[in-house]
Formats: sequence, C-alpha cells, structure tokens
Amino acid sequence: MFVAMNRFKVALRSEETFEAVWKNRQSLLADVPGFKTFHLLKGGEAEDHVLYASHSVWASRDAFEAWTKSEAFRLAHKDAGASKTQYLEPPELELFEAVEGA
Amino acid sequence: MFVAMNRFKVALRSEETFEAVWKNRQSLLADVPGFKTFHLLKGGEAEDHVLYASHSVWASRDAFEAWTKSEAFRLAHKDAGASKTQYLEPPELELFEAVEGA
Repeated sequence: MFVAMNRFKVALRSEETFEAVWKNRQSLLADVPGFKTFHLLKGGEAEDHVLYASHSVWASRDAFEAWTKSEAFRLAHKDAGASKTQYLEPPELELFEAVEGA
Repeated sequence: MFVAMNRFKVALRSEETFEAVWKNRQSLLADVPGFKTFHLLKGGEAEDHVLYASHSVWASRDAFEAWTKSEAFRLAHKDAGASKTQYLEPPELELFEAVEGA
C-alpha cells in the first residue's frame, strides 16, 4: 500500500472555498490503474489556519508515479491556483509506503 | 471516515529498531468497535531522520476516542518508551475527519 498526502494550511474563513473546489471537481481517479481510494481530510484548527490533507491510496509507488506523468493528472491540476482559497504556505506533499499492517 | 496519524521522526540508523517494535507487537485493534485498518507508514528521509506515521482508520471520531479511554489502549501503550529507538522529537498526533471522498 502506498499513501500520497498533500497537506494544505488553509487560512481561517477560506475553508468553505477550499472544500467547494474539492467537492465540485470532476475526479478522473477512479479509472486510473492502481488507484484505490481518495478522501479529503480535515485536520486540526490552529490559530491562523486549518490543516487539510488530500489522502489517496495506491496499490504501489509505481502506480502513483505513473499517474503523475499521465494526461489524467495534467487535466486534474490544470486549474490549480485558480481558486480564491488563501493558503498560509504552499502545499506539502508527503509520500508513504506501508511497512506493516494488513 | 476518521484517520488518526501519529508522526514519528526516527533518527537515522534507528529505523530497524523502530520498525521491529511495530512488527513484533501484539495488536489488539482488530476487536475494537469502529476500528477499520492499521498501517505503519514510512515516509521520506531527511538529513537526520526518517518520517514514519502510524495510520489508523476508524468509523468515526467517537470510535477512536472510546478506544483511547479503553483498557485495550492502556495495554497497547504500557511499554511505549521502553524501546531503544532514538527520536528527534516527541511523536505528533494528527486527527482527520473525511469531508469528501467515498
């Protein structure tokens, strides 16, 4: 199992705008080889932001990397940056490989 | 869906000791109400540490919180700190609620 998480520090009062982008997008992930699940996760609230993470699970790192080089990936990200969401810093991508667990 | 992740910055050359603790433990999670899955995830390597995360998925925040107050939780954590793993800082618990995704 391979997990790709992109962490977003969303400024307070930008949460609705941010969530709307994810809820209204047309995801093409379901047809991507090796893709398993996607969730948008909402984490804790700090003084000046809320932590969110896009959380996708893949069969393998290879499957994830193949997707990042695909036309589906390019289409999914072509409007990134067009939203009016305010971020405290650029998103931070973290990649994880399962080493234990079913 | 609710995700609980505990982030560990494990000092370089402590990775094997750290992973062994997780691989050799007797997990009692399978019988806990609302528990879904557990994985130990290995993330990126920095100059002085490797990022790991314990990654458990729960039916709800309530199910996770009930577990943290249970005897099963107490037993699971009674030897925490006994390992010789070197950490760069204390573990950091992050809790997430799914707001989008199947």
